[in-house]
Amino acid sequence: MTAIDLNADLGESYGAWTLGDDDAMLAVVSSANVACGFHAGDPTTLLRTCRSAANAGVRIGAQVGYQDLAGFGRRFLDVAPADLTADVIYQIGALDGLARVAGSAVTYVKPHGALYNAIVHHREQAKAVAEAVAAYDPHLPVLGLPGSAFLDEAERVGLRTVAEAFADRAYTPQGTLVSRSEPGAVLSAPEAVAKRVLTMITDGTVEAVDGTTVEVRAESICLHGDSPGAVAMANAVRDLLRVNAVDIASFV
Amino acid sequence: MTAIDLNADLGESYGAWTLGDDDAMLAVVSSANVACGFHAGDPTTLLRTCRSAANAGVRIGAQVGYQDLAGFGRRFLDVAPADLTADVIYQIGALDGLARVAGSAVTYVKPHGALYNAIVHHREQAKAVAEAVAAYDPHLPVLGLPGSAFLDEAERVGLRTVAEAFADRAYTPQGTLVSRSEPGAVLSAPEAVAKRVLTMITDGTVEAVDGTTVEVRAESICLHGDSPGAVAMANAVRDLLRVNAVDIASFV
Amino acid sequence: MTAIDLNADLGESYGAWTLGDDDAMLAVVSSANVACGFHAGDPTTLLRTCRSAANAGVRIGAQVGYQDLAGFGRRFLDVAPADLTADVIYQIGALDGLARVAGSAVTYVKPHGALYNAIVHHREQAKAVAEAVAAYDPHLPVLGLPGSAFLDEAERVGLRTVAEAFADRAYTPQGTLVSRSEPGAVLSAPEAVAKRVLTMITDGTVEAVDGTTVEVRAESICLHGDSPGAVAMANAVRDLLRVNAVDIASFV
Amino acid sequence: MTAIDLNADLGESYGAWTLGDDDAMLAVVSSANVACGFHAGDPTTLLRTCRSAANAGVRIGAQVGYQDLAGFGRRFLDVAPADLTADVIYQIGALDGLARVAGSAVTYVKPHGALYNAIVHHREQAKAVAEAVAAYDPHLPVLGLPGSAFLDEAERVGLRTVAEAFADRAYTPQGTLVSRSEPGAVLSAPEAVAKRVLTMITDGTVEAVDGTTVEVRAESICLHGDSPGAVAMANAVRDLLRVNAVDIASFV
Repeated sequence: MTAIDLNADLGESYGAWTLGDDDAMLAVVSSANVACGFHAGDPTTLLRTCRSAANAGVRIGAQVGYQDLAGFGRRFLDVAPADLTADVIYQIGALDGLARVAGSAVTYVKPHGALYNAIVHHREQAKAVAEAVAAYDPHLPVLGLPGSAFLDEAERVGLRTVAEAFADRAYTPQGTLVSRSEPGAVLSAPEAVAKRVLTMITDGTVEAVDGTTVEVRAESICLHGDSPGAVAMANAVRDLLRVNAVDIASFV
Repeated sequence: MTAIDLNADLGESYGAWTLGDDDAMLAVVSSANVACGFHAGDPTTLLRTCRSAANAGVRIGAQVGYQDLAGFGRRFLDVAPADLTADVIYQIGALDGLARVAGSAVTYVKPHGALYNAIVHHREQAKAVAEAVAAYDPHLPVLGLPGSAFLDEAERVGLRTVAEAFADRAYTPQGTLVSRSEPGAVLSAPEAVAKRVLTMITDGTVEAVDGTTVEVRAESICLHGDSPGAVAMANAVRDLLRVNAVDIASFV
Repeated sequence: MTAIDLNADLGESYGAWTLGDDDAMLAVVSSANVACGFHAGDPTTLLRTCRSAANAGVRIGAQVGYQDLAGFGRRFLDVAPADLTADVIYQIGALDGLARVAGSAVTYVKPHGALYNAIVHHREQAKAVAEAVAAYDPHLPVLGLPGSAFLDEAERVGLRTVAEAFADRAYTPQGTLVSRSEPGAVLSAPEAVAKRVLTMITDGTVEAVDGTTVEVRAESICLHGDSPGAVAMANAVRDLLRVNAVDIASFV
Repeated sequence: MTAIDLNADLGESYGAWTLGDDDAMLAVVSSANVACGFHAGDPTTLLRTCRSAANAGVRIGAQVGYQDLAGFGRRFLDVAPADLTADVIYQIGALDGLARVAGSAVTYVKPHGALYNAIVHHREQAKAVAEAVAAYDPHLPVLGLPGSAFLDEAERVGLRTVAEAFADRAYTPQGTLVSRSEPGAVLSAPEAVAKRVLTMITDGTVEAVDGTTVEVRAESICLHGDSPGAVAMANAVRDLLRVNAVDIASFV
């Protein structure tokens, strides 16, 4: 039986502010990228999300980001590599402590937002994040974009790398993501997205914006947890995979 | 040979701001209460302090506090117990991650500032902190004031408690600390402080503000790391203990 | 024609997190208590809310609070009076700058959350807030609870004080608010709340929890902007006042 | 009699952390670039610095920066222009409120750290800052680097621009600053720096790193307030200017 890992960003509420529907998403995904307090996620929220994930049998990953609450970690911050390494270790440790209290543990790391995008190309920051993970625990896999400087640096320090594809993002004919600033960069029809995900898994391909077919290698597929309609899309994906006998299971 | 543990607050710089002389203090103390980022201590500072402590053979404790950078954790914050528990777990985990990367680990917990003072009497917050430590690791001892609600609650959840005395604080005839708002509450003459510490260790007593002698039970003695003259005082204590064949050694 | 001021808390979103429906509330109220960034409200949110308020002809008040984003300003913080005075001046100035750019200005001050509650009794903090407002602009009125230390201190420094009542809070037979920790402390039925508001305005009374009638003096009535159903409740109040020829107009 | 404005960064302490010697610097400079709380400066510190500046007859400028306390505003942050405009208005308003309570007012704006450096070239952020100042008060001059995108955009929106030179920074033969990452980029000998300042004022030139003489147009000269030896350098400059009958006076 075919199997695929589905991941989503969770634990992104903060104090009085709620974002996303963690419980509904945990009923679908196999891997929860839980925020670590730097871009989102107060400790109470994180502990609750870790407990829910543990109860749902969903793996917990540390979703590390820039220290920028006001910008939700979506703005590039020119952190010096040594500082970024310390920032990432701090975040993984903090979430791991909460996850262990919840009866689980951090079992992978996925950078968030602007950090994720920066280390596709920013070699020094990519190296800083990879070294942080390796220093914390060399057995932790990292999730990232295939071909990115980050996955390259992660392999260099001996980490297992897990390539991911995006359920609701348009792809160029070259197999890269269409920039969010372009029209049509983000798809929103649940059924169409579900079909794309199934094709990614069964054929290893996706239809690019120009109608051509491009290869997509992915061990995990990212569903967005915070967009309007996120839950409907996640449910559509789960239902279509179930009908087609594709198991949703963690890559770990 | 007699032995005593000396502890001090370290890792309290933040970004561009420096506080205290960590390296000088690490040459004296056996236990370093390292900040965890909530009242002080950016990750780079904390990692550096953990590395210095590890190199100096000094034990690392998590100095957990209220989330109040502007107030340096010195202002009471009426946090709900469940939130305080999550805040404390988050802080211990974050520092433990950095300490492990530095080749050491968090081996005890000591609350900081207003939290330390609050949980002398505030039963709910005392219980919340004790439960956080027990949930993170039931083998971690906690440092606190003898007779405090905190040590009481810590014992109740099965934690080892370590009572501490203060080298440079005046004591009432009842054996409690003279409030900082009173004149003469804090002593500053290095030699006089060193003699008090020696008497605490060898006789188990201290001279109170009214000249009477009161009992002081302490497994650890707190030196302040951030006051002007902190290093001179620490050195005076170390030198006098050495002359009197008192070993400075961690309680752990 | 009778007239009353209706106020509500607005501008309480932060970065990626949205709270309340500012535009819908601005279609009802005459006074907008706009957050100032310490408990909620990033500058972009505040500027947008100030522009919407200016366009809707709604007065802008500075909703000053404790510096506690994680706690949404709902936790007592033991700030020293001199620091609190500086904190409040900073917040009023920041919001006033944004309000002026939006073509309006801060025309009153209302403390938020735990600060509001603390200065009902906490004389030193009450004085600190009153002095901050008087130092910034002695012509700014302040909104508060009748009989509170805050309104008392505000009068002492020469400020105009505006007493408010709460549309959706239960009252004791003594005319004070039933604590939120008690069952039934907060009312939620729009029509019932609208009738209470009308009675407050026309009769100057409210029915207490024990069924007795108590006096309520109020120049302004507070509607909550962030609860579920806030908009429905606000609309019900507006509609009933309109039918009964009560004008909604700022107290200024 | 010749006159020149000397400016320095002040008010950069935060809570328990002290940076620089504001009072000593205020005895020399004519313009104080006071932090606004985003990169440094809690409200109590800012109010105290504003009072000291007012007492010393020194002009207060708003030293606006990125919202990055951990990085002291020294790391580029990719803020969207509309957000940066709101951030800058918020900061100017907050400081202006405190300055007015201190009996003075914000009379100019100078960007800080990484923002200062970014808007030498970053056209969108330069425009965002210029528009914020113009929106707050079109009569406020701005301080910046001659030839920068920022001064260009500031002129475009009708602001008065004030070009500054740096007392202790090495210059290239092209008249730009030697990057801080190069050896010899920052000068530290008080007498040598004082002589450079005098030559800048009397001849309008400075000796570049290769020994050639380059032109330096400046209405204000920046002294650094936070480096070790900052006060000694400031005093040396003041003493040499006094001997040479150069008056230190604000550009305003």
